[in-house]
Amino acid sequence: MSGAQRGDAAHLGAAEAVRRIARGELSAQALAEACVARATAHEAQLHAWAHLAPEAVIAQARALDAQTTPKGVLHGVPVAVKDILDTADLPSRYGSPIYAQHQPLADAACVAQTRAAGGLVMGKTHTTEFASIHPAPTVNPHRAGHTPGGSSSGSAAAVADFQVPLAFATQTAGSTIRPAAFCGVVGYKPSFNRINRAGLKFSAESLDTIGLLARHVEDVALWAQALIGQAPAALPVAPLRVGLHRTALWGQASDSAQQALLDAAQRLQAAGASVSDVSLDGDFTTLYEAQGVVMRCETARATAWEMAHRRSQLSGEFLRRLEQGMATPHSQYLEALALTRHCSAQLEATWQHCDVLLSLSAPGEAPEGLHSTGDSVFNRNWTSLGLPCVHLPTAAGPQGLPLGVQLIGPLGSDVALLGAALWAESVLVPHYPLRDHLR
Amino acid sequence: MSGAQRGDAAHLGAAEAVRRIARGELSAQALAEACVARATAHEAQLHAWAHLAPEAVIAQARALDAQTTPKGVLHGVPVAVKDILDTADLPSRYGSPIYAQHQPLADAACVAQTRAAGGLVMGKTHTTEFASIHPAPTVNPHRAGHTPGGSSSGSAAAVADFQVPLAFATQTAGSTIRPAAFCGVVGYKPSFNRINRAGLKFSAESLDTIGLLARHVEDVALWAQALIGQAPAALPVAPLRVGLHRTALWGQASDSAQQALLDAAQRLQAAGASVSDVSLDGDFTTLYEAQGVVMRCETARATAWEMAHRRSQLSGEFLRRLEQGMATPHSQYLEALALTRHCSAQLEATWQHCDVLLSLSAPGEAPEGLHSTGDSVFNRNWTSLGLPCVHLPTAAGPQGLPLGVQLIGPLGSDVALLGAALWAESVLVPHYPLRDHLR
Repeated sequence: MSGAQRGDAAHLGAAEAVRRIARGELSAQALAEACVARATAHEAQLHAWAHLAPEAVIAQARALDAQTTPKGVLHGVPVAVKDILDTADLPSRYGSPIYAQHQPLADAACVAQTRAAGGLVMGKTHTTEFASIHPAPTVNPHRAGHTPGGSSSGSAAAVADFQVPLAFATQTAGSTIRPAAFCGVVGYKPSFNRINRAGLKFSAESLDTIGLLARHVEDVALWAQALIGQAPAALPVAPLRVGLHRTALWGQASDSAQQALLDAAQRLQAAGASVSDVSLDGDFTTLYEAQGVVMRCETARATAWEMAHRRSQLSGEFLRRLEQGMATPHSQYLEALALTRHCSAQLEATWQHCDVLLSLSAPGEAPEGLHSTGDSVFNRNWTSLGLPCVHLPTAAGPQGLPLGVQLIGPLGSDVALLGAALWAESVLVPHYPLRDHLR
Repeated sequence: MSGAQRGDAAHLGAAEAVRRIARGELSAQALAEACVARATAHEAQLHAWAHLAPEAVIAQARALDAQTTPKGVLHGVPVAVKDILDTADLPSRYGSPIYAQHQPLADAACVAQTRAAGGLVMGKTHTTEFASIHPAPTVNPHRAGHTPGGSSSGSAAAVADFQVPLAFATQTAGSTIRPAAFCGVVGYKPSFNRINRAGLKFSAESLDTIGLLARHVEDVALWAQALIGQAPAALPVAPLRVGLHRTALWGQASDSAQQALLDAAQRLQAAGASVSDVSLDGDFTTLYEAQGVVMRCETARATAWEMAHRRSQLSGEFLRRLEQGMATPHSQYLEALALTRHCSAQLEATWQHCDVLLSLSAPGEAPEGLHSTGDSVFNRNWTSLGLPCVHLPTAAGPQGLPLGVQLIGPLGSDVALLGAALWAESVLVPHYPLRDHLR
């Protein structure tokens, strides 16, 4: 097989690859080889992988090719696993030197489900330290001096760079949607508690959500079918009712991010959606701060063993966050949870006249520098409320880096939201100027 | 030190032991030795321990005794850890041969917090297979042919038998309150998400709750302070408003269990509480079935790796439950979650005129036979709703085995509920005929 053909296979989305394999037009081995070739060639620049497993994924692909019936809906698709999830055959380091030699006995449940559906684990992608603030070594594939976002840094970069069609992410503040935005890929953060978390190294358990990254909405919908057991999303039948939500922090978004949101709203309206402005005031204006309180307090508890026994191996910035969490009174934690429940109840009225909210995914293009993974201020409310979100890349900023928007749906509306995202993708993504940028 | 003195120390509750150690009347080492001596002497009959660590706990106690300042609120108290929680220095087998050789790298967060507060891990107590239905080898300390309840079988038996003053439990259906009832100890299942679950082997993540077992309410309140960071409970100031709740399954309780509940209500009323009947109809009558749906579906997902790769090492009865979970349509799972939310909202009206509900903890005395750990039918609603529960032993049944009642409070009312339980204990437990039965 020639290098050119290999490159072609690596460019395929997961659903398209599965279709071609089913039709006998592509082998799982050729797909794995193409992805491995691309990942290997670019790793010295991108630093996406904490552990790449080229031989294993190719051997597993060859074994699949020898089967006469498809193993499942992901038959033969290479998958990257964020290194905050356990894998039975690969080290799981959680972005921390404390776990440098750590080999779990079992796969995380979502990894086992993915393999049972025919997905092939290609390796572990870099996470920030314990999926928190201390950065991973990964750079933005669109421009090496810029952050790819975090904490799912390696996953977003590897998918954007056509090294792998699917990658696991997680989100406690903005760790799925923000890197998707900065790298220009599709990000899906499901409703809270939809993808099983057994085998996830916890950060803050009332927020931690396993997310999915891909280059197409149909790919995350297919993967969700394997993980959640719900039918794949279909295009919505009735015109979509979109609530354009600028948020109370509109002023913190760059001009180009604001413009990208307004352009997306206009395009959706022109394509048939009804678009109305939705502003959420009162308690919503402090909800993102309540998310911070819950995150700090829960992360401090979840990291009790590391703080007591491996303190010197924690980064200074993470340790400061843990100490803030330890110092926060329990009453403040309970108030933050109560505020969150209150906002959740208030939103019910909004969902009476909106199918989805359309809002900012990030304050702007990926910032320069690798010392920070950027600001999660436009993600934290939705994680707090446990609402499903889908990011779509739609525009480029003045620096030539990706911009986009997120769709947000009611709790548990994941199938309908993915359907809405499929339609929005068909309207918006053809205008995305960076679609073929990294090919 | 004589055997008699050792026995005395093992009979102390945790709070009383801490007070004596602080006053210099007892050493941590003497307490640990007394507990170890009792556990070692009875293990061949009771089978409470999956792994007992006599040398380690005594060495740690000696090290504590050499310190000049107390380490924390649990300074010197031996603690049993249910073997579904990870420990960095002891194997963690989860009640399954699959994990026979499993040594985690880190402590579960709640174990690390307990150690940081001065608690000393004495060993791991037997759990049913993955805290589900396949029994542990533990027998009821009151009568060897009867179940101690489950899944926290070893923890409840060890506390009841004065082998250890504190033991971790967990509850997904009735796994903390039911063994507390069958063994005649105090059981505290906190509000959902109050004790951090990092390092817990998940069963069903929207239900799994870490619970505490002890022989006195003040002991679980003290421990909760170390784990949750809230002030210890105080006696309620105003007369307690008690809702006597027979449940829709009243007919499934034995005559003596029914009588124990009515007697407890009468005694609390005579002591000054206002008691009114509370019946919960409509959706509540099927809530326990919804709990079963959620548990089956989530457990099947959480056990995806074991099902795919270690199927032959799962018990037949657990495997059947997993297969039921796999076969349950996703829509049924979502309906069960929706019903639970609906019941939660309906209960708000009840909490307007009740501080606590008073209800059955189990259908009756511990059943004969070790093939089953008994029925969780009177626990499942409260686990589903995430409400805090405290079991108190109050009576003996016709077979001479423990009976009792549980108090249930609103979500997040843990401190107030523990206060109510302190008061109820002072009223009810002096009448408990088996108080000194196992001394």
